[in-house]
Amino acid sequence: MSDLPKSVMIFEEGPREGFQIEKGRLSTDDKVRLIDALSETGVKHIQVGSFVDPRRVPSMADVDDIVKRMKIVPGVEYSVLWMNERGLRKALEYPQLSVDGKLRLYPSATFLKMNMGRTPEQHAQKNIEMITLCRNLDVPVTQAALSSAFGCNFQGDISLKLLEELMTDALRLAEGEGVKLEELVIADTMAWATPEAIRRVVGAMQDKFPHLEIRLHLHDTRGMGLANAYAGLTMGVQRFDSCVAGLGGCPFAKHKGASGNICTEDFVLMCEEMGIATGVNLDAMMAASALAEEIVGHPVPGHTAKAGSLNEIRARVTAAA
Amino acid sequence: MSDLPKSVMIFEEGPREGFQIEKGRLSTDDKVRLIDALSETGVKHIQVGSFVDPRRVPSMADVDDIVKRMKIVPGVEYSVLWMNERGLRKALEYPQLSVDGKLRLYPSATFLKMNMGRTPEQHAQKNIEMITLCRNLDVPVTQAALSSAFGCNFQGDISLKLLEELMTDALRLAEGEGVKLEELVIADTMAWATPEAIRRVVGAMQDKFPHLEIRLHLHDTRGMGLANAYAGLTMGVQRFDSCVAGLGGCPFAKHKGASGNICTEDFVLMCEEMGIATGVNLDAMMAASALAEEIVGHPVPGHTAKAGSLNEIRARVTAAA
Repeated sequence: MSDLPKSVMIFEEGPREGFQIEKGRLSTDDKVRLIDALSETGVKHIQVGSFVDPRRVPSMADVDDIVKRMKIVPGVEYSVLWMNERGLRKALEYPQLSVDGKLRLYPSATFLKMNMGRTPEQHAQKNIEMITLCRNLDVPVTQAALSSAFGCNFQGDISLKLLEELMTDALRLAEGEGVKLEELVIADTMAWATPEAIRRVVGAMQDKFPHLEIRLHLHDTRGMGLANAYAGLTMGVQRFDSCVAGLGGCPFAKHKGASGNICTEDFVLMCEEMGIATGVNLDAMMAASALAEEIVGHPVPGHTAKAGSLNEIRARVTAAA
Repeated sequence: MSDLPKSVMIFEEGPREGFQIEKGRLSTDDKVRLIDALSETGVKHIQVGSFVDPRRVPSMADVDDIVKRMKIVPGVEYSVLWMNERGLRKALEYPQLSVDGKLRLYPSATFLKMNMGRTPEQHAQKNIEMITLCRNLDVPVTQAALSSAFGCNFQGDISLKLLEELMTDALRLAEGEGVKLEELVIADTMAWATPEAIRRVVGAMQDKFPHLEIRLHLHDTRGMGLANAYAGLTMGVQRFDSCVAGLGGCPFAKHKGASGNICTEDFVLMCEEMGIATGVNLDAMMAASALAEEIVGHPVPGHTAKAGSLNEIRARVTAAA
């Protein structure tokens, strides 16, 4: 347990994951307000939306406007999710966006078929085409992302062997195309992970692919989000996706529960209280969380913005003494 | 991390912790229905209410009726919280209740004053009186309980040194009275604990007082409930308090947030998925959680009863294949 990192890098995905799943239409003004608030929290990476087909994801139809209107704070990296050539070309229209390519890997062939309409072979071909496209457009491909790495609602448990084979194939494919991957995102898309599964999978990936930085994308759908994040920290993981207020969830995963990604301010509190620097101002993130709750118009899963930070209590106790 | 226990003992406190904090009056019928449902889940310990002053805790005024009417399932231990001679004598009227005494220890002198109206010296005297009373009534005193062991909203952080001193004094006091303690409950009453704090405090207590079984009482107010429980598991802790549906919280702790104790069914899911036997039937506990939500009449914090179990999905996937 001595492997806790000294600091972590937080990738804020609230605007993208969060707004994507909200049923009610949110105004572009509100979305920009939240992104601008997040820009002032100290978080260094914000994903602000998706360049995806607005017929499939209507809540992302205004992403051009968002990108044009959001305030760019120096030192903060803004990104937009894209899935195809059209999305990539859109992203490249905006110099304020950080754009890179990723190899998307689907351990669940069933989900790949349902979500993307492809066989594994067709998908590998698509990944090659994506690399070629990125090369032609001077976009670096640095990341592999394992979706539903711990289990899938349509395929069941995912074995470590399958993950390792998929990654070995992906690295071979990347190498064949002259691409050197740097980061491996392990996503618990459908909330199947337990802390021990996190330790097992992260440990195996670190052993087998030591040159890749691990990044965890965790969902709190079964209440284990922070437990899984803590398990990742004990393995030395330093990169975590999270969503302000705990917004989010994947609209295609057919979750019955409402909970989305791990909550940024809860994760920040846990890290900072354990002496792990996040670079995030917790009070500012709690304020952004309150704004997010106001904007979505329903209770959000995050805890800390309601319960208050411990530093706030410490200050009150000290003042009273 | 190899110290995960093979099994855990769950102390279900939903009826007591949960119903105590609910604003609306719940009917005795409903409370008995929930207790009877819990009795069928496989959980072996259920705290069904408190024999406390109904002027302070009006929601517990019907506890006599509850004890008389609840169904007693063989193998399940039923208990009622009591705080003074009157409460203890009430509990002893019911042979269906398991009754024992505990040394309550308050690291926060401020909370002790606010909650009990006593100085530490007065409280130590009360503990001696309680032991004498138990001796006279043939009630075993086996447990010490550290309240707010990780921090207090009125006193701030609690040092490990203070906890150790308090426990050393308590053990000396107990020994002086001829009492042999067997269990130490460490309670994070106001949700100040982090996983690392759990490991530090549990580790120190195990080192210093190796003959005491540790039991953790955790709150999820800042979202770290299961992360803290996992940290306890990694230290070999085998006893955990929890509440069905995540009901609960202490009405005197003045929490702004709504979250109470760790949620029984979420904890059961986490343990069972990691190969730790709980003896609890998860489906039955999820059904009890749905009943609890219906009874309290508002959304409850638990996740799994909404998201569904993984075994349910596995069965569906297998059937579809």
